[in-house]
Amino acid sequence: MAEYIESLRLLAEKFGRLEGVGRKTAMRMAFSVLELEEEDARAFAQAIIDAKEKIHLCPICQNLTDREVCPICSDEERDRSLICVVSDARTVMAMEKVREFRGVYHVLHGLISPMNGVTPDKLKIRELLARVGEGEVSEVIVATNPTVEGEATAMYLSKLLHPLGVRVTRLAYGVPVGADLEYADEITLFRALEGRRDV
Amino acid sequence: MAEYIESLRLLAEKFGRLEGVGRKTAMRMAFSVLELEEEDARAFAQAIIDAKEKIHLCPICQNLTDREVCPICSDEERDRSLICVVSDARTVMAMEKVREFRGVYHVLHGLISPMNGVTPDKLKIRELLARVGEGEVSEVIVATNPTVEGEATAMYLSKLLHPLGVRVTRLAYGVPVGADLEYADEITLFRALEGRRDV
Repeated sequence: MAEYIESLRLLAEKFGRLEGVGRKTAMRMAFSVLELEEEDARAFAQAIIDAKEKIHLCPICQNLTDREVCPICSDEERDRSLICVVSDARTVMAMEKVREFRGVYHVLHGLISPMNGVTPDKLKIRELLARVGEGEVSEVIVATNPTVEGEATAMYLSKLLHPLGVRVTRLAYGVPVGADLEYADEITLFRALEGRRDV
Repeated sequence: MAEYIESLRLLAEKFGRLEGVGRKTAMRMAFSVLELEEEDARAFAQAIIDAKEKIHLCPICQNLTDREVCPICSDEERDRSLICVVSDARTVMAMEKVREFRGVYHVLHGLISPMNGVTPDKLKIRELLARVGEGEVSEVIVATNPTVEGEATAMYLSKLLHPLGVRVTRLAYGVPVGADLEYADEITLFRALEGRRDV
């Protein structure tokens, strides 16, 4: 039946282009749009256009924002000497939820992955070096994912940053809080052992 | 950060209104829209408006369509004496994939569920009775889900349809093809036993 209704097929195809949305989910969502009120559907369409038009990158930290400079970079109370480097805007959201970090961020917009054609020049590394080069920064925390790409990016950055005279750190590895040790993988356990602390 | 970017929060909220989309998925999708090309985002927005504007209910079977009468109802080769009653348009899609059913459909747009405020008058039952009342129909297959609501709706329909002199049938219960009996629930096994056939 989907093949009969062209506009439904087209809408499902659009949903399918979003990250992590499969063919079945896309179709379910397209059907779901039909159940919205006319007005809500229009507001949905407008929200897509608005988000795309209004949101751009903060010229300082490269995070997404709808202001000229993002609220974190413009916050006078944040510690500009401490930069937390993350791969994407979503990690900034996750870190901000902790409410413990009072430094600023730098969003790379990806991780080095030559296999997928992501070379260092495709990331916002130049901008990071420029920020650190200004001399105000004392520590860079590389908070990339504990994956092959995340590690490679962290290594690459530390090699570039050390000569600039800043401290480069990495998030601690270990077992997640609340996790069951029985199900922890051996590498995580090894790292947790390695990083053990006195109590 | 989501709280800082109003247009992103708004877009995530719209995604969150779709069936089966939780808060986290909605936010992931909103971010995903930002990664689309400007042109693709506009096409996405337009697809929502188009689908909503062009798709309506077929006046005969109540299925979704972008034509005056849906392709199944206008297909001269389909058997109009056999109506398969389903709860929603997605079930029509699933049935059509079988390519075995040559009758026509009737979409109820829901199942009777007084707990959720869905009384029989909210469904397309009146339209079904009108179709059957025209006298051309000999059998109605009630293909509602094997759930409490599906059963209740099937029972309700059979009581209304029997006096009209049509045969009312229900899909067979049993173990799904390819399933492992070890994991089948007892009610399904009981129904499969009950409906056993000679080989």
